[in-house]
This record gives sequence, C-alpha cells and structure tokens, in this order.
Amino acid sequence: MLTAHVERRRRLMARLDRPALIAAGAPQPRNYPANTQPFRASSHFLYLVGRPLPGCFLLLADGEATLYREPPPPDDALWHGPQPDAAELGEALGLKLAPLDALRLPPDTMSLPAMDAATVARQSRLLGRALTPGRIDPTDLPLADAMIALRLRHDAAAVAELRAAAEATVAAHRAARAALRPGIAEYAVWAEMQAEFTRRGMGAAYAPIVTRRGEVLHERGLHRTLEAGDLILIDVGAETAGGWAADVTRTWPVGGPLSPTQAELHRVVRDAQAAAIAAVKPGVRYRDVHLTAAVSLAAGLVELGILRGDPHELVADDVHALFFPHGIGHLIGLDVHDMEDLGDRAGYGPGFTRSARFGLGYLRLDRVLEPGMAVTIEPGFYQVPAILDDPARDPGDRLDRATLAKFADVRGIRIEDDVLVTADGADVLTEALARV
Amino acid sequence: MLTAHVERRRRLMARLDRPALIAAGAPQPRNYPANTQPFRASSHFLYLVGRPLPGCFLLLADGEATLYREPPPPDDALWHGPQPDAAELGEALGLKLAPLDALRLPPDTMSLPAMDAATVARQSRLLGRALTPGRIDPTDLPLADAMIALRLRHDAAAVAELRAAAEATVAAHRAARAALRPGIAEYAVWAEMQAEFTRRGMGAAYAPIVTRRGEVLHERGLHRTLEAGDLILIDVGAETAGGWAADVTRTWPVGGPLSPTQAELHRVVRDAQAAAIAAVKPGVRYRDVHLTAAVSLAAGLVELGILRGDPHELVADDVHALFFPHGIGHLIGLDVHDMEDLGDRAGYGPGFTRSARFGLGYLRLDRVLEPGMAVTIEPGFYQVPAILDDPARDPGDRLDRATLAKFADVRGIRIEDDVLVTADGADVLTEALARV
Repeated sequence: MLTAHVERRRRLMARLDRPALIAAGAPQPRNYPANTQPFRASSHFLYLVGRPLPGCFLLLADGEATLYREPPPPDDALWHGPQPDAAELGEALGLKLAPLDALRLPPDTMSLPAMDAATVARQSRLLGRALTPGRIDPTDLPLADAMIALRLRHDAAAVAELRAAAEATVAAHRAARAALRPGIAEYAVWAEMQAEFTRRGMGAAYAPIVTRRGEVLHERGLHRTLEAGDLILIDVGAETAGGWAADVTRTWPVGGPLSPTQAELHRVVRDAQAAAIAAVKPGVRYRDVHLTAAVSLAAGLVELGILRGDPHELVADDVHALFFPHGIGHLIGLDVHDMEDLGDRAGYGPGFTRSARFGLGYLRLDRVLEPGMAVTIEPGFYQVPAILDDPARDPGDRLDRATLAKFADVRGIRIEDDVLVTADGADVLTEALARV
Repeated sequence: MLTAHVERRRRLMARLDRPALIAAGAPQPRNYPANTQPFRASSHFLYLVGRPLPGCFLLLADGEATLYREPPPPDDALWHGPQPDAAELGEALGLKLAPLDALRLPPDTMSLPAMDAATVARQSRLLGRALTPGRIDPTDLPLADAMIALRLRHDAAAVAELRAAAEATVAAHRAARAALRPGIAEYAVWAEMQAEFTRRGMGAAYAPIVTRRGEVLHERGLHRTLEAGDLILIDVGAETAGGWAADVTRTWPVGGPLSPTQAELHRVVRDAQAAAIAAVKPGVRYRDVHLTAAVSLAAGLVELGILRGDPHELVADDVHALFFPHGIGHLIGLDVHDMEDLGDRAGYGPGFTRSARFGLGYLRLDRVLEPGMAVTIEPGFYQVPAILDDPARDPGDRLDRATLAKFADVRGIRIEDDVLVTADGADVLTEALARV
C-alpha cells in the first residue's frame, strides 16, 4: 500500500473543513482523438494517490478517501489485457473505489481545475459551478492553501522521488558531456540524455534546452551543430514515473577546455551559485538568496572590469540584471516550477508580492525557507542583444563595453542545481554532477 | 519557398466555393499552463503551411492565402531570441502575413475543429458558431471532403516525407534488434529506438508498443524485462519534423533463433502479409486486401492443424478473427491513422460503411485503392485469452485446442509495413527492414 499517500490524504483532510475533489485529468488529443499526448496526471492527484490514473477523481469527504473511476468497457481486456479489479486497486492504493457514475458531490465541495478542458468541463458539471482552466475560484482557495501547506515541505517519500529524479538527471548530463565534440548536433546530445531517462522509465520534466545559443533564455530549437570553441548550455531535468522533477543546467565547452575569457566568466557564475547555496537555510528569505547571488555576480563582473561601481549599489540599481535578468530559482517538486498551476500563491508566501523591478520581477519564489522545501539555485550570465542594446537600460559608464567586447565568446552561461533545505542548511541533491 | 504547399493551397481553393479557416492549434498545458506538451500542429495546417506555427490561422479566401499570427510580445526577443519578421516569414511560406487581431472572417467560412479546446473556442468565436472538438459540423463537410480528396493521394513532397519517416523507422527497429538480449528491459529497447528519432530531429508518431506481451493489442507498459525464448513485439514509427508518419511492427525472438513453433506461426503471418502486399494495386478494394490476408492466415493455421475447415469458409464465419481480430491496416500520411480526426469519412469512401462483423468491424479503411495512397499492411496472430475463452466466440471443433496448446510460446506476432500504391502495384516504403 502507498502509505505515504494515505498519510498525505489524512493530513490534507485534517486541514479542510469542507470536502475536496481532486481530478487526475484525461489524456489530451494530439492530432486526432485516439492519438493522445503522453498522459500526465495532475500533480495534486499524483501527490495524493501516487499513480497516474486517467479520468479518475479522488473525493475526500467525512474523513474518507474514495477514488471514482470509469469501469473499463466490455472489450477492454481484448485491447489492454487483464487489469486489476476495483478491490485489488483499492487495496494497493489504500482507499475505497467506486464507479464514476456513482459520484455525487456533497454541498460546498472544493476543487482545483485540471489542465485539460474536458476534465474541467466535467468538474464544472459535478460541482454545479464553472471552473476556469488556469484560475482558482475564491471558494476553492482553502483547498489550494492546504495543498500548498503540505507540498511545500517534502516528506520522506517525496525526497526519495526527488533524489531519483536528480540521479537520472546527473546521469543524463554526464552522458551529454561524454558526447560533446565539434560537429555533433544539439539533437544528438539530447538523444543521449533522453535515453538515460527512458531506460529508467522516466521522461523529461520540461522541454529541454540544449543550445550553443545560451543567451536565448527559452531556446527550444535543437537543430544547430556544435563547433569548436562553443559553449553549450544544457538545461534538462528528469521526471520520475510518479511525476517528480529535477531541473539542472550545466554549461560546458565543446572541443577543448574553456577559453581564458570563458573560464573567467564561468568562475564568476560558479562563485555566485556557491554564495547562493551557502545562503540557503531555514529562516532565510529566498529573495535574499537571489540578492546574494546578484551581488556576488556583480562583484565578479567588477573584478573583470565589465562593470564599475559598488556591487551592492549595482544590484540596487538592477545593473547586474543586464547580464542576469532572471530569478535565482524556484520551488521544485512534482512540478519543475512547483505548484505554478496555483499562480504565485505557492511561490509568494502571505505578505510577499512580486516586485516590478527589472532585477526582481522575474523571481518566481519569495518565501522564508523552511526545512523540507526544495528549490533550484541557478545564476547565469548572458549577453542578450535585446537587453544590452536597449537604450532604456543603458547604465552609462557603469558598463565598460570595450572590456565586455573581449568576452564575446561567452553568449550564455547558467549553472543550476536542486537544493533541499535541511534542518540547519542545504543538501544539494545534484551535487554529484561536476560544474566545470 | 515551400512550393508544394503553395500548390496544395491552390488545389484546395480550386475545390472550394466558400472560404476556409485552418487552425494550427495551440500548445496544451501539461502540469501547469507554462509547462506545455510538445506542440504538434494540426495535420491540415501542416499540409497547407508546412511549419508548426502555434496559434496561427490560415485563411483561404478569394483565391488568396493569408496567415494570421499573434505579433510577438515586446519582451519576446529576450526569451526567444531574434525571430523572422512578418515579411521574411511570408516570403519563406509563400503567403501573406497579417496580425491575428485583424482577422475578420467572410460569411460562410468553413473550418475544422483543432484538437485543443482553447483553439476550438477561438475558432467558434471567429466563426460566430460553435465548433465541437472531434466532430465535423455539416456545414464544414465540403472542406473536410476537399482536404480528404487532396490528402488521400500523396504528392511528391509528401512521399519524400513518408520516405524520411520510413528510413528513420527502419533505423530504429534495427537499433532495437541489435539491443535485444535476455535481461534487457522493454524501456531500454525503446530508448535505443527513440534516440534514432531524436538524433534526426524527429519524434514518435504514436505511443510505442515494445512488449513481450504481444497479445495485448494496445499494451503501453514498457516496464517488463525480456527473457530468453520471448518474442518481442515492437510497433514503433517515426514522425518527421513536418509531421509525417511511419508505422512499422516487427516481432523478433530474444536470446536466440525462433523456436520451431514460433518459426511456424511467424511464417504464417509473413505469408499473410506477402499475400496482402501482392494484392495492393490501383482498383483493388482495401477490404479485399484484408480478406486476402485473412484467408492466407486461415490457410496457414489449417496447415498447422490449429484450425479445421475451408479457409474461405473460416473467414466468412470470422473464425480467423479469433487470432487476427483487427484490420489489415489503415491510411497513413500526416497522421498515423491518416485523417482520423474526420472520423470514418477519410477511411470509408462514399458508399462504404463499417461492417458489424467481428472480423471486419475493426477495419479502419475501406476504399478502392488509387495511385498515391499510402496504407499499412499489418496482419497478426495473437492468443488473447479474452477472445479464446469467450464461449460466445467458440467455433467448436473448427478450433483444435490441443494443437493450439503446442504453440503456447507464441503470445502475439504482428508484421507491419507501410505501402505506397503506385501506378501499377505497390512500393513498400519500409522494405529495407528485415521481417525475420
């Protein structure tokens, strides 16, 4: 029996004074209805049930968990082979099973919208009120907040899954590094990584970034061929069969060691990451981890002569963000941006709101860290023409463009690891992977 | 310029007397809105435009093709790098570009529903009438029929794509075969095949079947470990970057040659496939290709002593379908079941309807073959307990269960190739792959 999930359901119900309906979601059609995208159950469902059961609904009411599912059609055994019956499945999952058409919701049941429109429509009919994809109805906020309260601090079963995702991700990045050579296509590097996931029965937690154009922050193309002297930026993480994510970035040279200029900026990013990881511990505000990395990065760039001024003042004025325009990281768990389906509600604790500042607005997380939280730490340095050529962002003589020009062989560097907050510090789940 | 696509649009417009709106579709959220499934544009859009452009709409009206797209947001270059502007993209695609908010549909515009609910909702708003996912509105049938008329017979550019998909698929199956050994997991076999696709910038056209339980027709689990003496059934096909599919099945022994019983049944299936392929030529009704395979299979099983009686009579009474319960194949093109988004409208020509017979009802295609059509030919032999133990299907003494029991080491065999109908016969696109 999946005892961790029984305990999670118990803890969730203890936080709720109304019933809750959790939808697994349904497979989404790809190019025709029977050819579907690979099914990915909703993270809330996976958290509470532990298995991706398409079309199922979990009802938590009166201290009891019931899983409602469509009974298999008569010719199911012909196409899908013998399947566990309701009693066997209920036993394995530690809950009651019931047929979906018997589902009647108690009044005031709360729910969270699934990702697929067909399930959201079904939820709406069951609830007798319209749910909206991507939006939490105010009446459902107590359920959202209770899920956040549970999922923010990972239990032992969650940590085991995060470690499995991290282990596969480390293996994949090692396979990538072993494959690097001038003339290889980005696709071929990704193929080696994907094979590491697939062999383990895992997939990718998000669309892979494997690119010689590291300055394009969301570069999804994998069609370029690597050349000697390139830096390749690889942002790839595994997702376990149970749905848990890793999220790791490395930036490595192709066809030789780092050039002297690449080595200097790579060290600046590593130092910023080390400073940020050293800052991670319970009681620390995550925004301060971000600022620690930003100040470290600014100091490194001052040392190299790229920036001029006091690192703290440069950060206060967002000058560092010319080169590091994103946040230091985010929550990670069942989602690579954990619970982002709830908007900023998980990432920003009560009383915390997103800043409008260029150097802070992209930060996805701002909370006081607690033991059991898992976060990414991912500083970077990028030369993005759309930023550096923007007159509105020109910092005047605080940026030495002549010196910067000497570092033209660095387009983008990011170094990212997954970090579990422990009782007195941090445990880097992906520490086994070399950074340089 | 994508000249084949210009020509396709011209030919489509020549068949229509009303305007047509073709939606690319939009990425579907996976576990939260920003983490989407890999985008797959609608096949009709890919057929006419040639590139997967999320969120775009193609309007064909007054002999002119216009592509409407959302202008990129202001910070797009920051996240996605510089992109081609409207003029460059229009030049490359051979059509006019316009911003999406300028799209006004002429009266009586026809359309076909996209696969994702958000796009279907947008189409409905644009058309001023409700489209339903998975259903063709009667007013849109002329568009559906014109698309079918074009897509049924593949042009040279389509054939080139089908050959590329076939070539990658052959390579993948060879990689699988090279990896087979007792102790390897089904997942690891699939990893080798997937890597062949990924290295080419391709993906899978459908969920892979890689299983030692070949008798489970839609077995999606890949978690089992192969043992010596197993047959592994591998049904895997590539999809090119442009969206074109291959669909190939091989059934191979693990850890040695086929056993004598496996070899006999493998030969029976191969013979049935060869008979079916030999029957493929213009003017032949596809159902007769199916029946040719069925009679060949029945004759082979009579020869082995598993069935008793006249092969034609056995087929007329659906006795062959105890072991071969599915159809001989289907159309293949941009969809692995080509145009199945239009229901049976593409698969069943005017005047042809699905049979209710057990031995014919699963046939996805019944048309008179024409040059340029591509179909799969995929006979099989399976021992499915849900069929063989069903008293309603018991053929009495026409089945020799004692002889069948000697073939217990055969759970499922299927052999499938992709066949292009030529002017005077058939071209097996996947002929390069050994069958045994």
